[in-house]
Amino acid sequence: MLGDPWSVIVLRDIMFGDRRHFRDLLAGSREGIASNVLASRLRSLVAAGLLTREDARRGQRARYDLTEAGIRTLPVLVALGAWGRANAPSTPLLAVRQRVMEEGGDAFVGDLMDELREAHLGIARPRPDAPRAFDALRTAHEAAV
Amino acid sequence: MLGDPWSVIVLRDIMFGDRRHFRDLLAGSREGIASNVLASRLRSLVAAGLLTREDARRGQRARYDLTEAGIRTLPVLVALGAWGRANAPSTPLLAVRQRVMEEGGDAFVGDLMDELREAHLGIARPRPDAPRAFDALRTAHEAAV
Repeated sequence: MLGDPWSVIVLRDIMFGDRRHFRDLLAGSREGIASNVLASRLRSLVAAGLLTREDARRGQRARYDLTEAGIRTLPVLVALGAWGRANAPSTPLLAVRQRVMEEGGDAFVGDLMDELREAHLGIARPRPDAPRAFDALRTAHEAAV
Repeated sequence: MLGDPWSVIVLRDIMFGDRRHFRDLLAGSREGIASNVLASRLRSLVAAGLLTREDARRGQRARYDLTEAGIRTLPVLVALGAWGRANAPSTPLLAVRQRVMEEGGDAFVGDLMDELREAHLGIARPRPDAPRAFDALRTAHEAAV
């Protein structure tokens, strides 16, 4: 269902970079994804039911939203990231985020998924006043920069 | 590092089917992997450091062993399987094994990894007298058949 490494990278950038538009995903790509590769992977992810593409209205760019099935790939990305942190060279900045997620465990990953449901599906968080898990990731990242 | 779905399937069959030889992986493949695809994925997994290929002695077939990095992909496979069980149609028999692993959590998956270290790397289990997690999977599978 994920198909190839680029699909995982695109999902990661949508989730953690909050990039919802083609141009942002292209310009912000740490790995320098090519335009045609990005277009084909976005099509595959929509076809696989992990993303929806909201048609652009006049003068607006199309926006990609994660589906519930797409949001539920987050634990797979966390497991892949844990493997990478232990077994493959990584950039220290990505490792910081990964370590925070591993230390937070299932509850923290569950909070991240609730925040993705709010941002992509418009579903309110169960505890709207609780601190945001994505803020904790951002704080850890900024402290490491 | 996993690259494509066939690589994941080959790792799964080595881990859960205890298939260590090319011919067993080919003949036992539930998905009917083609011979040339299997050969290329085994080469990729060796090149990625997830498997080693023990050269065949005269009259013997080459055997594939998981490396430590290969064994550590098990949590990724469990996360992928959890996604599949919740979001994609699955065969009931695979779902049984997956449910046992999810219910067992990190400790159970850790026991499975220790048993893989014993079978593939010759490293004794920390608690040699403890019941085997793979036996629990097998029992659950047989009860479902």
